[in-house]
Amino acid sequence: VSTTSEFDLIARYFAPLTAGAPGAYNLSDDAATLSPSHGCELVITKDAVVAGVHFLPGDPPDLIGRKALRVNLSDLAGKGAQPLGFFMALMLPAHINDTWIESFANGLRLDVDDFSCPLLGGDTTSTPGPVAISITAIGEVKTGRMVRRNGARAGDVLCVSGTIGDAALGLEVASGGLTDLSNDDRVFLLGRYQLPTPRLTLGQAESARDSAAIDISDGLCADVNHICVQSGVGCVIQSTHVPLSLAGRRALENKPELIARLLTGGDDYELAFAVPPANVTAAQAHGQKLGIPVTPIGIFTAAPGLQVLDAYGHQVKLDVLGFTHR
Amino acid sequence: VSTTSEFDLIARYFAPLTAGAPGAYNLSDDAATLSPSHGCELVITKDAVVAGVHFLPGDPPDLIGRKALRVNLSDLAGKGAQPLGFFMALMLPAHINDTWIESFANGLRLDVDDFSCPLLGGDTTSTPGPVAISITAIGEVKTGRMVRRNGARAGDVLCVSGTIGDAALGLEVASGGLTDLSNDDRVFLLGRYQLPTPRLTLGQAESARDSAAIDISDGLCADVNHICVQSGVGCVIQSTHVPLSLAGRRALENKPELIARLLTGGDDYELAFAVPPANVTAAQAHGQKLGIPVTPIGIFTAAPGLQVLDAYGHQVKLDVLGFTHR
Repeated sequence: VSTTSEFDLIARYFAPLTAGAPGAYNLSDDAATLSPSHGCELVITKDAVVAGVHFLPGDPPDLIGRKALRVNLSDLAGKGAQPLGFFMALMLPAHINDTWIESFANGLRLDVDDFSCPLLGGDTTSTPGPVAISITAIGEVKTGRMVRRNGARAGDVLCVSGTIGDAALGLEVASGGLTDLSNDDRVFLLGRYQLPTPRLTLGQAESARDSAAIDISDGLCADVNHICVQSGVGCVIQSTHVPLSLAGRRALENKPELIARLLTGGDDYELAFAVPPANVTAAQAHGQKLGIPVTPIGIFTAAPGLQVLDAYGHQVKLDVLGFTHR
Repeated sequence: VSTTSEFDLIARYFAPLTAGAPGAYNLSDDAATLSPSHGCELVITKDAVVAGVHFLPGDPPDLIGRKALRVNLSDLAGKGAQPLGFFMALMLPAHINDTWIESFANGLRLDVDDFSCPLLGGDTTSTPGPVAISITAIGEVKTGRMVRRNGARAGDVLCVSGTIGDAALGLEVASGGLTDLSNDDRVFLLGRYQLPTPRLTLGQAESARDSAAIDISDGLCADVNHICVQSGVGCVIQSTHVPLSLAGRRALENKPELIARLLTGGDDYELAFAVPPANVTAAQAHGQKLGIPVTPIGIFTAAPGLQVLDAYGHQVKLDVLGFTHR
């Protein structure tokens, strides 16, 4: 970083992101203090993103910052937690200038306010490598009430929020693909890739009803499989029930072979949750109230393994269950 | 990472680092749960380290992992906190193999046990850049009792733990310098650079007596200056009182101009703290009980600014106060 010292950077761009949170001490100390609310415990998650792996180096800096935070907030959403704040380590190569950092911080500021999730502390450092952002997000749940991966039971219904596969198509768009779609569709899909929406309100609302939940970051099939493995159950997904956006449907009409990509592509940041059958109607009603579709797409089974069926009851061929950033 | 999937990596090398901490769920979920003890609040700090900036790419992996944790534990020590656990994002380039990771994890395991600080969660990802490790360490203090940077008062005595400047000389050794020293001295100094000792027991013990404290990561003068700026006071350091190791003293005899390096070099990870005069004897006695020297080296002043005096009362010339990893 050429022109501004670490201390100036913190004072100018990052201290405002604390939004007055008392335990952040305006980033003037080495550590922050934090306590859960009475009767609550903290839920803590940590995900790092690296240029060239999780985002493209030329992506708009404000969106990079927001997505880095949102992928962590999405983990909190999956666990039914309410955000309290976050910590951030920012690794910046020498070519990053103040304009980039200002845009990055301005983007983050929007999400700090929207999600009531202040910056509580962190670290900036130089790197001879690409931009990397490591965020630790902290939320809270009523003590003992975090929704785990491991509670799904045979007979529970698999539900998902929103629409699936948009981000995988958005990455295609960002890489110059899907030129047969309209400009509007391409912009929509790109937006779903660059700026996911953590389903915090839904996650908190459904947490009392779920037997297990996860946010879909590795891809629908991979993340549902995580629930299966941890819960000791299997799952049958009816692929024709998987909710698609209009843009997603049009892409699939043009290229039916995209179905595998939609079902296994990462970065959806929707929620997948196991709902006891008696609770499905209430889960859907609650989603409707929040304006977030909740769609039943499958059933958990006593037999282990994940099956994905097409309209004719045949297995959809998938080369991999999902995407890992490795 | 060539041979092992992220999931295998976690199960084989990282899940054992949770040491059975219940809120870590054996790293099988997206998030961990944590609560402070009754009457306590959490103290949270985050420092990232990057190959080529904070350590040398060829350093032994076990020492890299331990130092990454220890620099964070040192922050907790400075704040008087007791460690509860840590979160880690590990960014690994493709050339890193299982042998490297195993050594890295084995090193960490020693410190998890020694400092009773289990791994609670995290993330591994690939990177096109150098190895980077971002750790968030969490400790606890009695609510409202975290030692801040901003409590020093004019008349308080500046004390430091251990010996100062060894790590700066150790970095010289790592870079092929200080060949006039004995092999034993060089090994000692290199060790102080590669494996600092977070002064947790001392920090916890002194916290009731301190008016302000910081761990020395940027260099003695820079970190004392942080206390001064945040507390609205100045400080006069008597450089001849600054405690040096035998190896440090021998290096200084050979090259008296190294004094500036000793006073401003980073990576000491000793504590600097402001002690009201009535408490200095008790502070030293407590240090002695723990086997960690506590040495008064200066006095905080009403007039702002940092002065470093030599044996004749003249200012020691320093080009910079400290080192920042930028």
